[in-house]
Amino acid sequence: MRTQVVIVGGGPSGLLLSQLLMKDGIEAVVLERQTKAHVLGRIRAGVLEMGFVDLMREAGVAERLDREGFVHDGAVLSFDNDQVRIDFGALTGRHVTVYGQTEVTRDLYDARDRTVGRTIFEVSDVELHDLETDKPFVTYRKGGEELRIDCDFIAGCDGFHGVSRKNIPDTVRREFEKVYPFGWLGILSETPPVHDELIYASSSRGFALCSMRNANLSRYYIQCPLSDKAETWSDDAFWGELRLRIPAEAAEALVTGPSIEKSIAPLRSFVSEPMRWGRLFLCGDAAHIVPPTGAKGLNSAASDVFYLHRGLTRYYAEGDSGGIERYSEKALARVWKTQRFSWYMTTLLHHFPNQSDFDIRMQEAEIAHLREVRTAQETLAINYVGLPY
Amino acid sequence: MRTQVVIVGGGPSGLLLSQLLMKDGIEAVVLERQTKAHVLGRIRAGVLEMGFVDLMREAGVAERLDREGFVHDGAVLSFDNDQVRIDFGALTGRHVTVYGQTEVTRDLYDARDRTVGRTIFEVSDVELHDLETDKPFVTYRKGGEELRIDCDFIAGCDGFHGVSRKNIPDTVRREFEKVYPFGWLGILSETPPVHDELIYASSSRGFALCSMRNANLSRYYIQCPLSDKAETWSDDAFWGELRLRIPAEAAEALVTGPSIEKSIAPLRSFVSEPMRWGRLFLCGDAAHIVPPTGAKGLNSAASDVFYLHRGLTRYYAEGDSGGIERYSEKALARVWKTQRFSWYMTTLLHHFPNQSDFDIRMQEAEIAHLREVRTAQETLAINYVGLPY
Repeated sequence: MRTQVVIVGGGPSGLLLSQLLMKDGIEAVVLERQTKAHVLGRIRAGVLEMGFVDLMREAGVAERLDREGFVHDGAVLSFDNDQVRIDFGALTGRHVTVYGQTEVTRDLYDARDRTVGRTIFEVSDVELHDLETDKPFVTYRKGGEELRIDCDFIAGCDGFHGVSRKNIPDTVRREFEKVYPFGWLGILSETPPVHDELIYASSSRGFALCSMRNANLSRYYIQCPLSDKAETWSDDAFWGELRLRIPAEAAEALVTGPSIEKSIAPLRSFVSEPMRWGRLFLCGDAAHIVPPTGAKGLNSAASDVFYLHRGLTRYYAEGDSGGIERYSEKALARVWKTQRFSWYMTTLLHHFPNQSDFDIRMQEAEIAHLREVRTAQETLAINYVGLPY
Repeated sequence: MRTQVVIVGGGPSGLLLSQLLMKDGIEAVVLERQTKAHVLGRIRAGVLEMGFVDLMREAGVAERLDREGFVHDGAVLSFDNDQVRIDFGALTGRHVTVYGQTEVTRDLYDARDRTVGRTIFEVSDVELHDLETDKPFVTYRKGGEELRIDCDFIAGCDGFHGVSRKNIPDTVRREFEKVYPFGWLGILSETPPVHDELIYASSSRGFALCSMRNANLSRYYIQCPLSDKAETWSDDAFWGELRLRIPAEAAEALVTGPSIEKSIAPLRSFVSEPMRWGRLFLCGDAAHIVPPTGAKGLNSAASDVFYLHRGLTRYYAEGDSGGIERYSEKALARVWKTQRFSWYMTTLLHHFPNQSDFDIRMQEAEIAHLREVRTAQETLAINYVGLPY
């Protein structure tokens, strides 16, 4: 088999890239290790930057997103009962859209199913070959058979645990990592959200986030020790702890119900450099991970997709390889900005083990500073709604 | 002896307070443990906020400061060779004034010598009494004699090691502290400053600051381990290390010469709450210390002096004790903002032991963010030139 671009990984980044390429007449094959049902079963964040929504529109897959997504013009940050609302609209003239990542992936698959683009599920033993030549190829196993696809380029969209990144030699690859000493215990519940905007709540008991998917589907998180197990947290214990961390008014308004999903996720900052090796380009989690505070994971993947799509289009349409040659540099410049913001939000809002009373006062002072200094709010808002590509 | 206000400590805070009170007809006696020559021999920072300069003017002691002080409209921050100039003038319409703390103290003493206000040097065994009554008094020894001053109020301006703070009972007093794992090795040299504005230089080798007192007196600092001794650092070693940490252009322009002072200072953040206990009011270092990054030590003391002066004047002029009753609350609100800024600047610019490559990238990203995001520069500038009282 031969194609122009092999996309390793059928998550939202890989699929979005495939749709954008297809619009420009560039053929791509997507290889996915799991079944489609498995990919669609993943529950992830759901706060989309306008740049992401614009890419979905460009790819022709934003019809339901535009209809069902919730425009959020602001978010609330609190430290105990000291609150500040960051008014994205007034501060930046921009907003974010709340629409679950699962829904994004579903829309992308629905669109892909209507095209000729091939998506091959349940592949294993994916190996990338001859990346430093202009004739790279990919081998994999599917249903017991060993298969090969020749191509011009390979996009590694296979996440943190994927094989793509490891094809960049150890002598070249440089990895930066911060593992945070806590996790997020999250639940999904069929209850109305406690507030129509997200609440990022810091407290001396730890962080909590009030989020949502739609008018009757709420997503709440509380910071927990990494040693905790989701199954030992009863729903009652979760709701009780959440109430103690969010502003009193929100705690009173909170509607609780049985959880329909409950899990613990660790928090990590991670960047691998470079993001290009010969004809291989890494996108999204394959090259970088952010902690979820600030909702940048999917959005940071989208900027990679943007740069790679532009680079490939320029190559195929104009024979100009400048865009793909500078892909790593361009993508990383924005990646580090997003990393900085996610690290800032995480450091600001969480309780750290061995944190001193002075450190807690610094967090409190930062919230007070945000409340009082408009340019500080603007800076946060500019980053939250998404820096330009 | 009897007076209205006893000021414990004859440093710049105590003297400035005494001058402001005297202008309003309020009598104060200043008690100082050292000789005047010793107080004037202390070398400290020299970047004054406009609020501080205004207070000096109000006290009638700003003539030389207005004549000889250097107005700085900006400062440079760098990370290796990535620089950003923070243009205070364009960003805030305000500036800072470079004028040594030693000169401030000298001007205040010169003014005080021309008044009837008493300053008593070389006192020892200062003890504060009956602070919770409206008839407090102070006892001390001077030249072998035990003496007593009765008064209405006591201002504790006697610094971090002074006795005043310890008069607030342990059961009431709450102390917040962060000790940084490094110090500043500073030298004073009779050379022209490398740049007409301050350069705050972060680098993978550690922090450096290029500062000055006047056109032929430079003050340079480099971050060093706390275990270092100033006497084992030769001038040559200092200049060599400084050159490696500042932008290449500055390193080339640097004029070196013999040091006329060389010392190592530790860095600490410290706040003691409350700042009032009965008739005792703490001002400046007696209640709070900042690390020198951002030059807030003297400026933070000045805001305390401002609030206390206003409170005492209202009390004596109008019989209204509201200002002095809320002194602690008002002073601390600004103290914590200044603490936040000094902690931010220190954390941003220093190399920390055990800092990971990721952490270093976050510092680099923050400098890049400052370079690119104007509201981030504005926020820094607003804090650097001084938040309103």
